[in-house]
Amino acid sequence: MQVSSRLSAVRLTDYYLGGAAMPSRIVESLTTTPVMSELFSDQSVLTAMLAFEVGLARAEAGLGVIPASVVGVIEEAGRAELYNADALAADSLRSGTASIPLVKALTERVRAIDPSAAGFVHWGATSQDVTDTAIVLVLRTARDILHADLTRLESALYRLSEQHAGTVMLGRTLLQAALPTTFGLKVAGWLGAVRRNHARLHAGFEEAIVVQLGGAAGTLASLGNQGIAVGHALARELGLRYPEAPWHTHRDRLATLMCAFGVMTGSLGKMARDISLLAQNELAEVTEPAGHGRGGSSTMPHKQNPVGCALTLAAAFRVPGLVATFLSGMVQEHERAVGGWQAEWSTIGAIVQATGLAISTMVEVTEGLHVNIARMRENIDATRGTVFAEQAMMLLAEKLGRDVAYKTVEEAVRESIIARRDFVDVLAGMTEVTGVWDTSLLKTLRSPEGYLGMAEDLRRNLVSEKRREPSG
Amino acid sequence: MQVSSRLSAVRLTDYYLGGAAMPSRIVESLTTTPVMSELFSDQSVLTAMLAFEVGLARAEAGLGVIPASVVGVIEEAGRAELYNADALAADSLRSGTASIPLVKALTERVRAIDPSAAGFVHWGATSQDVTDTAIVLVLRTARDILHADLTRLESALYRLSEQHAGTVMLGRTLLQAALPTTFGLKVAGWLGAVRRNHARLHAGFEEAIVVQLGGAAGTLASLGNQGIAVGHALARELGLRYPEAPWHTHRDRLATLMCAFGVMTGSLGKMARDISLLAQNELAEVTEPAGHGRGGSSTMPHKQNPVGCALTLAAAFRVPGLVATFLSGMVQEHERAVGGWQAEWSTIGAIVQATGLAISTMVEVTEGLHVNIARMRENIDATRGTVFAEQAMMLLAEKLGRDVAYKTVEEAVRESIIARRDFVDVLAGMTEVTGVWDTSLLKTLRSPEGYLGMAEDLRRNLVSEKRREPSG
Amino acid sequence: MQVSSRLSAVRLTDYYLGGAAMPSRIVESLTTTPVMSELFSDQSVLTAMLAFEVGLARAEAGLGVIPASVVGVIEEAGRAELYNADALAADSLRSGTASIPLVKALTERVRAIDPSAAGFVHWGATSQDVTDTAIVLVLRTARDILHADLTRLESALYRLSEQHAGTVMLGRTLLQAALPTTFGLKVAGWLGAVRRNHARLHAGFEEAIVVQLGGAAGTLASLGNQGIAVGHALARELGLRYPEAPWHTHRDRLATLMCAFGVMTGSLGKMARDISLLAQNELAEVTEPAGHGRGGSSTMPHKQNPVGCALTLAAAFRVPGLVATFLSGMVQEHERAVGGWQAEWSTIGAIVQATGLAISTMVEVTEGLHVNIARMRENIDATRGTVFAEQAMMLLAEKLGRDVAYKTVEEAVRESIIARRDFVDVLAGMTEVTGVWDTSLLKTLRSPEGYLGMAEDLRRNLVSEKRREPSG
Amino acid sequence: MQVSSRLSAVRLTDYYLGGAAMPSRIVESLTTTPVMSELFSDQSVLTAMLAFEVGLARAEAGLGVIPASVVGVIEEAGRAELYNADALAADSLRSGTASIPLVKALTERVRAIDPSAAGFVHWGATSQDVTDTAIVLVLRTARDILHADLTRLESALYRLSEQHAGTVMLGRTLLQAALPTTFGLKVAGWLGAVRRNHARLHAGFEEAIVVQLGGAAGTLASLGNQGIAVGHALARELGLRYPEAPWHTHRDRLATLMCAFGVMTGSLGKMARDISLLAQNELAEVTEPAGHGRGGSSTMPHKQNPVGCALTLAAAFRVPGLVATFLSGMVQEHERAVGGWQAEWSTIGAIVQATGLAISTMVEVTEGLHVNIARMRENIDATRGTVFAEQAMMLLAEKLGRDVAYKTVEEAVRESIIARRDFVDVLAGMTEVTGVWDTSLLKTLRSPEGYLGMAEDLRRNLVSEKRREPSG
Repeated sequence: MQVSSRLSAVRLTDYYLGGAAMPSRIVESLTTTPVMSELFSDQSVLTAMLAFEVGLARAEAGLGVIPASVVGVIEEAGRAELYNADALAADSLRSGTASIPLVKALTERVRAIDPSAAGFVHWGATSQDVTDTAIVLVLRTARDILHADLTRLESALYRLSEQHAGTVMLGRTLLQAALPTTFGLKVAGWLGAVRRNHARLHAGFEEAIVVQLGGAAGTLASLGNQGIAVGHALARELGLRYPEAPWHTHRDRLATLMCAFGVMTGSLGKMARDISLLAQNELAEVTEPAGHGRGGSSTMPHKQNPVGCALTLAAAFRVPGLVATFLSGMVQEHERAVGGWQAEWSTIGAIVQATGLAISTMVEVTEGLHVNIARMRENIDATRGTVFAEQAMMLLAEKLGRDVAYKTVEEAVRESIIARRDFVDVLAGMTEVTGVWDTSLLKTLRSPEGYLGMAEDLRRNLVSEKRREPSG
Repeated sequence: MQVSSRLSAVRLTDYYLGGAAMPSRIVESLTTTPVMSELFSDQSVLTAMLAFEVGLARAEAGLGVIPASVVGVIEEAGRAELYNADALAADSLRSGTASIPLVKALTERVRAIDPSAAGFVHWGATSQDVTDTAIVLVLRTARDILHADLTRLESALYRLSEQHAGTVMLGRTLLQAALPTTFGLKVAGWLGAVRRNHARLHAGFEEAIVVQLGGAAGTLASLGNQGIAVGHALARELGLRYPEAPWHTHRDRLATLMCAFGVMTGSLGKMARDISLLAQNELAEVTEPAGHGRGGSSTMPHKQNPVGCALTLAAAFRVPGLVATFLSGMVQEHERAVGGWQAEWSTIGAIVQATGLAISTMVEVTEGLHVNIARMRENIDATRGTVFAEQAMMLLAEKLGRDVAYKTVEEAVRESIIARRDFVDVLAGMTEVTGVWDTSLLKTLRSPEGYLGMAEDLRRNLVSEKRREPSG
Repeated sequence: MQVSSRLSAVRLTDYYLGGAAMPSRIVESLTTTPVMSELFSDQSVLTAMLAFEVGLARAEAGLGVIPASVVGVIEEAGRAELYNADALAADSLRSGTASIPLVKALTERVRAIDPSAAGFVHWGATSQDVTDTAIVLVLRTARDILHADLTRLESALYRLSEQHAGTVMLGRTLLQAALPTTFGLKVAGWLGAVRRNHARLHAGFEEAIVVQLGGAAGTLASLGNQGIAVGHALARELGLRYPEAPWHTHRDRLATLMCAFGVMTGSLGKMARDISLLAQNELAEVTEPAGHGRGGSSTMPHKQNPVGCALTLAAAFRVPGLVATFLSGMVQEHERAVGGWQAEWSTIGAIVQATGLAISTMVEVTEGLHVNIARMRENIDATRGTVFAEQAMMLLAEKLGRDVAYKTVEEAVRESIIARRDFVDVLAGMTEVTGVWDTSLLKTLRSPEGYLGMAEDLRRNLVSEKRREPSG
Repeated sequence: MQVSSRLSAVRLTDYYLGGAAMPSRIVESLTTTPVMSELFSDQSVLTAMLAFEVGLARAEAGLGVIPASVVGVIEEAGRAELYNADALAADSLRSGTASIPLVKALTERVRAIDPSAAGFVHWGATSQDVTDTAIVLVLRTARDILHADLTRLESALYRLSEQHAGTVMLGRTLLQAALPTTFGLKVAGWLGAVRRNHARLHAGFEEAIVVQLGGAAGTLASLGNQGIAVGHALARELGLRYPEAPWHTHRDRLATLMCAFGVMTGSLGKMARDISLLAQNELAEVTEPAGHGRGGSSTMPHKQNPVGCALTLAAAFRVPGLVATFLSGMVQEHERAVGGWQAEWSTIGAIVQATGLAISTMVEVTEGLHVNIARMRENIDATRGTVFAEQAMMLLAEKLGRDVAYKTVEEAVRESIIARRDFVDVLAGMTEVTGVWDTSLLKTLRSPEGYLGMAEDLRRNLVSEKRREPSG
């Protein structure tokens, strides 16, 4: 076969010595968005790593730790486009961290400009200082992207809920028709969860976006008594907060942020599950928007697939396991871990990109969702009144006691289903009911609007809830 | 064989019809503490479920929704000790929720006292209202238990860190000797993480401890226009907060709390890993306390096993997967889930109990930890000065430039290891070094106290950090 | 509040010293079956642990390693009912394994009968030898229970598939109507997966059911040169296989078996998802059997909830995280792990019980499933022929080329949906179609039986596939 | 800041419409090897997808389903290098599968060569047929790569074990010195697990490497009565097996294979944990090979980091969560899933690459491992004889009974540790011992070789165990 023959040509004895990693965009095509993949791209990550090195040089020069003349050289050499991502990735695999080859390459480039400056590159820092601060810088940008998308999602959900405040539909429990509710309340429930998760993400970012500077063993030893001062200056250079101490093996801040992503994706998954269920042909209550290549089938012209929901659900399947990985990896040895730390970067990348995809996908789905109000009503009607059984039971209970009422209603429901007759008609004909019942009550039992309880009040509670802590 | 023959006697055709679940305390013996297992015991959970039913009756009677006379009857019938947990558990499995059999049993008991009251049991509520509120009540007690234990753990860590502010030890990265640090700083790092996690747990509890009352489809329909008022009154009865709306299929608050448990257990796992590594015979820097049956071996009298660390690490292995389960289960359909919800109770129970075990175990380990200060110093000495290589390199770099310095030091280290000679002696004899070096510098290079950087400042930052948001 | 006040009375300072764990059957009520909970009950596990000790004594006496007179004493003392599970569980938590307290208690009991025999209890074995062999004995019984249930499930699925070989229904992709298929093929797909998983479980059990006997460090040192002979004799006593070496920290056999459980539960979850979706009111193609307390709602008399599917799906949510825990825990240190091993017992218990519940639940669901053949046909009809769009396209493609055919059919589908007209009627009226089309083809397009492809052949392939390796 | 300012320039409103994904090799640098990343690269995956389309055309032409003339055109158009992976990945995200844009692009390219052939591209197949078969083809190559690496790993482990059959070292339980063992036995334990996992991987591949061809709803409807024949012919073209039926939503074969990867990675993680622990300075029993950029520190010239172990442990942290994702995703709806399927590709890619990295890394570590035999002996000596406590106890037990023996030995151990005296000397001086003890026994107690039990027999069992089912 073509594939295997091509690959079997690879000389296995060679590859232990390294070589370039190949792009795998197709395999990863359902796991990220263009903007998210740019955020975790080689250029973006190199930019962030070099921002650390430049910021460190500035901070140290400002405090007289290294000569001021070095800064310009490191800035000149510290542009991401000067570096070969392929080679760096290959060398990362050898050294166990991307920092070692990058610092080496940066040092060579600095040396080429000014040999006397080379010795001051990365002064007093350790590899993990670079990679941790770089990921924090990447996460800060993720925060801004996600904030914009979430704001947009919340607006779309708000509008949808307001618009359908009075749209009556079936409430469904265990996938069975339960009682009437409103589509406005359903959407408000989604909105409430998104808002709460947005606030949590914001809080998680606030806590996690702190600089890392600890030196080789987290004591800042090679910076003498200026270590903390350098840390503060570096934080200022990068616009980050300086924490009370280095956090090389204390990953609780990042873990908490990853968990916030996990919970967000869970809530979006619930929303996507609901929409994909409502979009089933037999329900046909909503349809995903079809724009820009969405939803078609290569062989079935009649299909309008809920692709956005599928992608969001895929994220909701993937993120829990990734969060578990991050949590497992928290068990990190002493002052630098052997395994737990090395598992983090790709896990963070996968979690953030999956969640970013889920959010932006649900923006598109929500903004363009088609709602079939008539069909929602038809699906209530198709239950032949059995969804009013609880209401009938509550009414009858006042006259007959709940036990007799429950049994009477249960029998009427059974008869209604078997004989395909209207539940209220059946009920009205039962001997237990005759005498305790009058016509006006019967009318109530046929109107879903009459059995919505506090749906609208609850909906307003949810949509008017002020979002806590707006970010940015 | 005994086991199989005994069990093969079970008539398989019978068991589909139910039967009592058997206690499995031995299999679960390493997953909980006595107080935690009491918290999730049948009596505790029944008490919480019945507290909901009694509270609901009180709330509804107060608002005139049900007759005031009913309350006393429900209170009388609502004592947990009246119910058979075995039978209820068996029936739960049939009905898919513990609420249905309990409400049925409660109703029968109420009927036996006052037949006219029976119809008002559970008025307007749905099964999930009971179980969700019950788990919230259980979690509230968990909060108090954990808060007490965490406060004790923080105190023990604080004392240990203060006591060892000046205790010099090896910092280790990738399990290799790196630079000197202090045991006080190491402990302060553990303390910082515990405190941050304590604050997160507190915030998570605050958010999650809300009453559930939504009725059959989350609209409170069967309570007419008094649904929200009943909700508020019920919340007051139970001392809980009433949220903006029911949350039957929006599990983000519980999920966030479960994640906070996950991150806490991760941090404790890191601490347990560190301690178990330091306790290795070859390091012998710390020893777990041996009291009350801890740490012995049935066959090896010389063993002092780090059992507390093992139990905490076991929790850190188990909780991430459980958190993933909770996050996966968030994808819940419409107004009541088919699967995701039913997976929650035991998952919450397992997470809370595992974390509770890890916390209380680390209290015991920390309070009784034996620290061998002399051995910490010996382990530094055993590196023959090679841990001062970075320091030597930084000093030489000022004279020789970093490149020459790095190579010189690297060579000295190699020679020191191969010839088992003292690194500083080797270095002092190298031609590159002679001339740039003087005796006072050499002394510095032999004193770990002279290369601790900001260890004490960082330690003080960590221990003095005021804990955010004290709970309770 | 009642709950918290009751629990706040617990004196926290006390509980570090132990105390009995409390049964938590209600919290665990949806995670096991009666027979499975009996299998993992204290009595069952104690029986298995004592079977190891008795078997070891017999084996060693047979080889002259210990005096023959000891055997009877250990047998007499080795009856499970003599031991207090509460106390043993409490002591397990202290010593980090259930073996230490049990061996101690057994020794005391032996001593009480014959002091000279006491020294020969547990001769040459280590704690993990007991617990590992005990869990293997428990798993062997699990194998038999599951084999019986799986055989029953396969029979029920086989009958259901045969019965509905000709029952036409909608095939659905991404929850949208795709093409006709048969219910018989759908059921055969479930059956195929169950059979493959049954074979994998069988193979996993075969591999994992091996005795553990390694002594303190896995060298059988304290048995001199008779260690392996004792191992073989012990294996014979217990009816187990003796592996090539002890496996204290090599958990790949157990891990593989746990994975087989995980895959089984995934396949059953797929089946439960399908059934719960088909049971939605709007589809109404199947209904779960309602027997023995299944499926009712406390407040809604019209509900028939798919409780069996919900329980199975709950298992499918829970097991993946548990499998991940087991795999994480495989990273076990040297000759006995600190954490990974201690995490295993409850994880195995949870996986096996969850899968056992899922299997027996699906037996019940399958054996009693109500199938609504008429409704399956109606749901096809309700698509107004659009599910024949692919067929129309394939037919037209021969005349018009696939591109024109696809566009023509796509337009007809759109018109059919918008105008709520029959697709074939619309198509027949389109100018592109007139002339290339005749009446007989139109008839085909309205008959789902005419577009089933190889459904029946594939179904027969699946149901006739001989199950590999029947167990027991 | 640079990073955020650059990215904030992205116009968020645009990106919903797509755009190219960016390579993220640096973030992923520790998750794959060059050969593995090539296997999952765009070119490799496109090659595999196009192999399906070409194979399908050949198969169908051979059976007269499509014109023979079409085959050459599709072959010409079906070369991977003709396609733009960026664009395809972007369109995949829109359509929810990589197949739709590729089939479209292939069709256009075929049309450009021969318009009449365009309609026969992808004839009778559905999108999932392409992607599933493509991943199977990729997995087949993975099998060959991994088989070669595993064979090499097994050879290296075999040689290492043979070489150190007589190398005595400490056995350690719960990270504490237990009894003597041999390094040869330890290595043989690793080898045994690798071999068993190799056999399982082989079996998993055998089962999973089957063609997918089901058409739109898994009935092969659009191929009339030739569907199964086409399937067989396609399988022959691709050198795959044809299963009994399509498996669009039955993922148990792939899941089982993914589990086999998970168990393999767990066993390798155990090996890496052991080695990294033995490499600690204080033990210094082994050292990872340092070649090709491995193990250095940017700032600490004395460090030799166990980078290979760190990478393998990182894989062992990551894979369990990924396996859980795959298992969760098995719950797939009806004939094509909405979410579960879409989560698979990247999960498979991540699992296979992580395991491939772990295997090839452990090849390098094993082949170059430095073993310090002298140090192993020194570490035994450093216990001052306390590791012979069990042996002493067993010997004394014969004279004094086990209880008295245990207490006597326990006291001697305590004295030995406190007084830093030799355990045997202490024991020899105790009154209980004098009289029952003679000189020859004392000698035995100082020789680890005298207390190895069956270590060598067990080692030979493990290394001579014939590997089951060699692959390829």
